[in-house]
Amino acid sequence: MAKQSTRERIIVEGARIVHEKGFNNTGIHEILQAANVPKGSFYFYFASKEEFGLNILDYHNSLVRKWMAQQLEDSDLSPLASLRAFFDGLRSKYETTGCYGGCPIGNLAQEMADLSDAFRSKAEEALTAMRDAFARCLEAARQRREIGPALDPLETADFLLNSWEGALLRMKAQKDVKALETFCRMIFGRLLKE
Amino acid sequence: MAKQSTRERIIVEGARIVHEKGFNNTGIHEILQAANVPKGSFYFYFASKEEFGLNILDYHNSLVRKWMAQQLEDSDLSPLASLRAFFDGLRSKYETTGCYGGCPIGNLAQEMADLSDAFRSKAEEALTAMRDAFARCLEAARQRREIGPALDPLETADFLLNSWEGALLRMKAQKDVKALETFCRMIFGRLLKE
Repeated sequence: MAKQSTRERIIVEGARIVHEKGFNNTGIHEILQAANVPKGSFYFYFASKEEFGLNILDYHNSLVRKWMAQQLEDSDLSPLASLRAFFDGLRSKYETTGCYGGCPIGNLAQEMADLSDAFRSKAEEALTAMRDAFARCLEAARQRREIGPALDPLETADFLLNSWEGALLRMKAQKDVKALETFCRMIFGRLLKE
Repeated sequence: MAKQSTRERIIVEGARIVHEKGFNNTGIHEILQAANVPKGSFYFYFASKEEFGLNILDYHNSLVRKWMAQQLEDSDLSPLASLRAFFDGLRSKYETTGCYGGCPIGNLAQEMADLSDAFRSKAEEALTAMRDAFARCLEAARQRREIGPALDPLETADFLLNSWEGALLRMKAQKDVKALETFCRMIFGRLLKE
């Protein structure tokens, strides 16, 4: 594995802390400390805290794209079964880790969209990439007649993504995965079954 | 109208600023300034910034309860039509005001649930009250056979609430009400139509 540059290390550690605490609630000092970088050198690597935040979104976007392609496109399961397995896998993960965090991209969208248009547009870019991954999967499911022809893959994918983001928000408030279970029952047991 | 106490004025003005900027991103000084209260007197009214935040949640909870009861229970429309009118009215409001803010309770749940258990539990209390208002409406709709008997009012209400929270999050990221329109088409055009 190639050695991580200092800049990359700040982004990875920063992304972790921001996911735990929120962007505005995270100080530059604690990020540098976690990345083991000398105090005061932040602005050598980033023009501003905002530029650092935009890099965090790019980092999450790149990870999520790869991971969704792997789960939804390079799967041995059928399109609908891989979609189901994708959500089941996330539910298990949250069950194990105590329902903290939620979606790092959705969180930043919620926190920052009204405060910075650069943040808003980069968060929406990442959310659109997730929507597109769901849409490709639903299109493949439709071609295999796993879902009905009346469902538009793109619109259904938007609804899936948005509802999932809301389910994660409720999960954080309840510290319980039942919102994720309700999501799966409503989506797979009803909406996609028509 | 009874004169607002200073404490109430701080809560009302604080709730407005926190809704715009987030809790951690809002300073005590700007709240006092907006409420026209002398600098330094915050801790005369609140034991801590957290206690102030919990009061903001109580304030939103109380407003939302009254407003939902009015919209969903004291309506001349049928239960299903009043539910539809409720979401249509919110969509219109966001369309007029530029898709800012979103749900003040959902935002605080997302931002604060992992950071403070007192916040988390008060946010969930408010979300549960919203869920219960939807559930009463869906139960009434079921009794009038406006929705099918297979849908459990409580679980469906949870799904509606969570999906709506997610639609509002996406609306903020897109600065467009299309996520709210998609929500209405999927919920009223499909899920509740079965």
